[in-house]
Amino acid sequence: MAGSAVPDIVVGRLPLYLRALTQMAASGKEITSSQELGERLGISSAQIRKDLSQFGEFGKQGTGYNIAFLVDQLRRILKVEQAWDVALIGVGDLGRAIAHYGGFVDRGYRIVAVFDNDPAKIGGRIGSFTVQDAAHLVAEIRSHNIGVAMLAVPARDAQAVTDRLIEAGIRAILCYAPTSIIVPRSVHVQYIDPVLHLQRMTYYLG
Amino acid sequence: MAGSAVPDIVVGRLPLYLRALTQMAASGKEITSSQELGERLGISSAQIRKDLSQFGEFGKQGTGYNIAFLVDQLRRILKVEQAWDVALIGVGDLGRAIAHYGGFVDRGYRIVAVFDNDPAKIGGRIGSFTVQDAAHLVAEIRSHNIGVAMLAVPARDAQAVTDRLIEAGIRAILCYAPTSIIVPRSVHVQYIDPVLHLQRMTYYLG
Repeated sequence: MAGSAVPDIVVGRLPLYLRALTQMAASGKEITSSQELGERLGISSAQIRKDLSQFGEFGKQGTGYNIAFLVDQLRRILKVEQAWDVALIGVGDLGRAIAHYGGFVDRGYRIVAVFDNDPAKIGGRIGSFTVQDAAHLVAEIRSHNIGVAMLAVPARDAQAVTDRLIEAGIRAILCYAPTSIIVPRSVHVQYIDPVLHLQRMTYYLG
Repeated sequence: MAGSAVPDIVVGRLPLYLRALTQMAASGKEITSSQELGERLGISSAQIRKDLSQFGEFGKQGTGYNIAFLVDQLRRILKVEQAWDVALIGVGDLGRAIAHYGGFVDRGYRIVAVFDNDPAKIGGRIGSFTVQDAAHLVAEIRSHNIGVAMLAVPARDAQAVTDRLIEAGIRAILCYAPTSIIVPRSVHVQYIDPVLHLQRMTYYLG
């Protein structure tokens, strides 16, 4: 089961489930229901049951879900049982905040290399990282077999850096640059641009 | 036309169109087509035409879209012709990066107040802002009639701060805290959690 037959919109909800369940577990809870999870997430319990059923049988009617078990299963399905190595490109204010953020490693991602093209930044320290020269990006990413990149460069540089990430073998890019980037079909891209989210909300405001 | 009858998924694509068209305009382009826009965004031209047709008639068959006109119309539809006042709560590494980010005001959002509850930060300067005591958040937001908030506090504080934002009359919250928050139906929430996006990609990786 599973595999590419599962709609991407369903795949996109699994991390939300995992996040909420992990928080429940951290607070000492052992059992939950699709109702309770749904209330926390603003998603219907029917939707949650339907989504999870695409991957197997995780709960029994009437007894609810064992949280620890479901967390393990979701981590397996999302392939974050071990942490992925991640390269961060761009250490402006945002890149620096990303490098300092402590919330990645527990959830499946470990920044292992940090790059910038600014001579004033190259060689400097950010937390436990030494900023590397972006000129060596392809070789470094290849030699460490890094599969995931976070792109925190200005919009004008995003496509050129993307082309080099692809050359280096990167297969998933989280793009913080406020622009669309073009990648081959085999490479996954997700975008974070706060303004897109803000505009989606203010549309509804009078 | 328009109004609440337009599906939210369509509303969510309009900011993408606006962003791409604004970049085209900045590069001196005057006319585009749904094909060209679609290639840039990885969205089908049919989808783009259908989405835009929900709001009016913006292009003529065969002559394409006038970019400046379409930008104006999208800014009007998304209600970002003038900038919304925004409160930022939490000035850790991420909040600081948000406060310094220069890309909001041109796209419809102006941070006008910055809050934190850390005595070591209150009264300090971040760019052109003085960090205010979060204890005064409700009164300050009310007196300045601020409608939009960005929440960059730790997950454990997110719901308590959210409750006070709602008390203050905030109608749209961009939540950077990696947790779900509960709000009344009348309040809009969007989330930014990079791990959700990363997990949505690594699901597909071998």
